[in-house]
Amino acid sequence: MDEIQKRILAEVADLHTVPEGAYNIRANGKTAARNTTANIDITPKPDGSGIDIQIKPGTKNESVHIPVVLSESGLKETVYNDFFVGADSDVVIVAGCGIDNCGVQDAEHDGIHRFYLGKNAHVKYVEKHYGSGDGQGKRILNPVTEAYLDEGSSMEMEMVQIKGVDSTDRKTKANLAAGARLVVRERLMTHGSQTALSSYAVNLNGEGASADVISRSVAKDNSYQKFDSRITGNAPCTGHTECDAIIMDKAKILAIPQLEANDLDAALIHEAAIGKIAGDQIIKLMTLGLTEAEAEEQIINGFLK
Amino acid sequence: MDEIQKRILAEVADLHTVPEGAYNIRANGKTAARNTTANIDITPKPDGSGIDIQIKPGTKNESVHIPVVLSESGLKETVYNDFFVGADSDVVIVAGCGIDNCGVQDAEHDGIHRFYLGKNAHVKYVEKHYGSGDGQGKRILNPVTEAYLDEGSSMEMEMVQIKGVDSTDRKTKANLAAGARLVVRERLMTHGSQTALSSYAVNLNGEGASADVISRSVAKDNSYQKFDSRITGNAPCTGHTECDAIIMDKAKILAIPQLEANDLDAALIHEAAIGKIAGDQIIKLMTLGLTEAEAEEQIINGFLK
Repeated sequence: MDEIQKRILAEVADLHTVPEGAYNIRANGKTAARNTTANIDITPKPDGSGIDIQIKPGTKNESVHIPVVLSESGLKETVYNDFFVGADSDVVIVAGCGIDNCGVQDAEHDGIHRFYLGKNAHVKYVEKHYGSGDGQGKRILNPVTEAYLDEGSSMEMEMVQIKGVDSTDRKTKANLAAGARLVVRERLMTHGSQTALSSYAVNLNGEGASADVISRSVAKDNSYQKFDSRITGNAPCTGHTECDAIIMDKAKILAIPQLEANDLDAALIHEAAIGKIAGDQIIKLMTLGLTEAEAEEQIINGFLK
Repeated sequence: MDEIQKRILAEVADLHTVPEGAYNIRANGKTAARNTTANIDITPKPDGSGIDIQIKPGTKNESVHIPVVLSESGLKETVYNDFFVGADSDVVIVAGCGIDNCGVQDAEHDGIHRFYLGKNAHVKYVEKHYGSGDGQGKRILNPVTEAYLDEGSSMEMEMVQIKGVDSTDRKTKANLAAGARLVVRERLMTHGSQTALSSYAVNLNGEGASADVISRSVAKDNSYQKFDSRITGNAPCTGHTECDAIIMDKAKILAIPQLEANDLDAALIHEAAIGKIAGDQIIKLMTLGLTEAEAEEQIINGFLK
């Protein structure tokens, strides 16, 4: 990998050297490096459309990194990655994607990630998206995340897209069996004339299933964001979704949360708030010696932390 | 009017005798009584499709009642009523509709009410819907309410549908100019196999416009409710919408609130909660001597008050 690719890798996966554990690094549409462990196997799909990640039951404290870097203008790819997480395992999966586009053609990566969690498995999933490059070509990322949680399993998703992605259409879907739990923390920032669509469809199908989906976003300049979150309670369950957004400049934000209760014992709650940064917060930081721009940056960083 | 019609009238408009002020009482598709005042004129539309209500500028402390009663099975009517509310006036408008259907054919009333509020006008609008009768024919009410609020005007809507309406598709739309204010209090209860759809689209177009839309609903038995509320901020404005629902038995509820901020100074908030009656609330009332059914009824009455 060249220097640009290494820099992107550091942004999306916090990787400065080759990671420990299992990994599959994809650069410009090809596998750049791969490692498997005794418990975690990574195999390419026969048709070349992506990879299968098999995690043995009972695997604990291991990690899988599958970062993707694109530094070629005009490249457009769709990749299917399937994670089979064995029962009682406890793993960390990191799946960032970064695009550096210095050319005039659009670069696009559409990653479809499917997670099949066995009974009582626990996954912490981190997905970071990042774009850079001063070309006119757009940086486009359309991730699809599907999670199927078997009884008693749990998944924690950290979805971050802070900078440089021109257009994104993020779709996340989860089906939860009895006692399963899903926690989502999404952080989004758009600037320039970027657009970001993010939708969640969470189905609480088993008794005692629970979900907590929280999105925090900042829309700057002329950017546009749409947040669409649906929690459906089909069993005795609890669901909470929250969408807090800061609007700046000439940005536009649309939030459409949906709650659907199909069971007497489904308890569902939603909160949403869209507003600009409170003036008195900025003034307070300015009295401490910051400029207005620095004060705004501090507040946004704190909000998205 | 016969006894049944009088009883319905009492339910939907709290009227036991002819009201004071202006009124237009419609019974089974025909005008049963009409009264105008020096400041409020009611005229039938030339094509017979409804009535125009003209309220002179500066009219204060007057009321308009336009109840509708249907007691004929198989009757289906669509009525357009337009309210032109002069500047600086302050009036109460009561517009209930009740259907008593003892027959086998459906009875349906679709009322389209449009309100044009002049500068600084204030309207309190009360709309009650009610159904009764033991016939197999359905009682269907599909009200459309549109409000156009000029600068500094305000409108308070109280929308109530507690009992006996088999199917309803309620659509409310409001456009607010600078400094205008809209307050909505909706109370809905469905039982049996009733369905109720309720949608709000509120556009805050002028500086300082504000809206507060609160819906409380109870869904019993096998009934279905869908609540769809959209507040769009196109100017410096504040909007709040809240949807609280109690689910009972085998009922289903879907809540889809939408917030759209198209201006830096639009501050929009939403809250929603769907759940069943808390068990400890029922137990508390049962220790005071109520049966479980009585306790539930008490809680629901308090919730919908």
